[in-house]
Amino acid sequence: MGGLRERKKAETRARIADVALRLFAERGFDQTTVAEVAAAADVSVKTVFNYYPAKEDLFFDRAEEIEQSWLEAVADRQEGESLLAGLRRRSLGRFADHPNGPSTHFRRVLAGSPLLQAKGQQMWAWHEDAVAAALAEEVDELTARILAHQVFNIHPLALRMVERWTEEGLEADEIRERVLALVNRAFDLLDRSVGVGGAV
Amino acid sequence: MGGLRERKKAETRARIADVALRLFAERGFDQTTVAEVAAAADVSVKTVFNYYPAKEDLFFDRAEEIEQSWLEAVADRQEGESLLAGLRRRSLGRFADHPNGPSTHFRRVLAGSPLLQAKGQQMWAWHEDAVAAALAEEVDELTARILAHQVFNIHPLALRMVERWTEEGLEADEIRERVLALVNRAFDLLDRSVGVGGAV
Repeated sequence: MGGLRERKKAETRARIADVALRLFAERGFDQTTVAEVAAAADVSVKTVFNYYPAKEDLFFDRAEEIEQSWLEAVADRQEGESLLAGLRRRSLGRFADHPNGPSTHFRRVLAGSPLLQAKGQQMWAWHEDAVAAALAEEVDELTARILAHQVFNIHPLALRMVERWTEEGLEADEIRERVLALVNRAFDLLDRSVGVGGAV
Repeated sequence: MGGLRERKKAETRARIADVALRLFAERGFDQTTVAEVAAAADVSVKTVFNYYPAKEDLFFDRAEEIEQSWLEAVADRQEGESLLAGLRRRSLGRFADHPNGPSTHFRRVLAGSPLLQAKGQQMWAWHEDAVAAALAEEVDELTARILAHQVFNIHPLALRMVERWTEEGLEADEIRERVLALVNRAFDLLDRSVGVGGAV
């Protein structure tokens, strides 16, 4: 469980990323230097690079954690549950916690940087590859690849619909309910496509 | 069937778009003016604007035709065929004809212009909306929306895999066979998710 030293390190790491996101949102990603992030977070440049080898890593600071959570979602499947049950739980949990998707700061920085967009797409593809590999232990490789892709594509659809519902003036509670219904229906369809037990 | 005048107009329209794509690929989209396109296609600027109201339309010159072909694919479903049969045929046909996706010129211009990328995503979303509306005549709205989204997402996966297989040095014939197998499997899964008759 870490101990004090580990906890301190995790706190410093998180603080640096928080400060970085704030600066990126204020000034733009390209216009912000690592030195400025270090100064604002009250650490040395070397410390920043210890935690985050590249400037993009300051933005995608939770990439590893996110990939891990997807893989755990596949592994967490319980006896008799559908192949995709863990992935459904993970997606539902995410939209229950953040029905509007990433924070406004995160979106703004991303929208302003083609480099981060390209990097983000690449990382998304890596997460998808990892999930496809995990699913391939239960179904054939081609099916696993397609399922992983379709699971990951539920999120962009959900976020697009949230945006529309917001523009249409729906209440937050109503949006939350609708997005969870959408995610559930999408997984119902995927479950049926492989059969609840996971057989194709 | 048009007649001579209509055919001439279609030829002029296509020639302007071909010339534009070549110039965009040589110089970049932002660096090319409509006047330069007109001069290279040997028509007036007014003629270009008659066919293509905005410069982006010169690049996405087949947008309407593409949306129409998706809608016809939904409408073309025959007695006893699955809800998605027409869409499957359309996707297979496209990859049979162009297993590597859009032309090198098209990709290069797109890669160099965030504006065109944004516009392209928007148009893709419109095609998806149109297909969702067409499917909603047979299944409930939420299911139709999800199916349309998952159908449209088969293409990016197929193109990504084609890229990988190309990097791995596979022969063109092998790639073509694999991408058609992928598209077929993806539609098999979607068919099963709604039931072959289209009932959910």
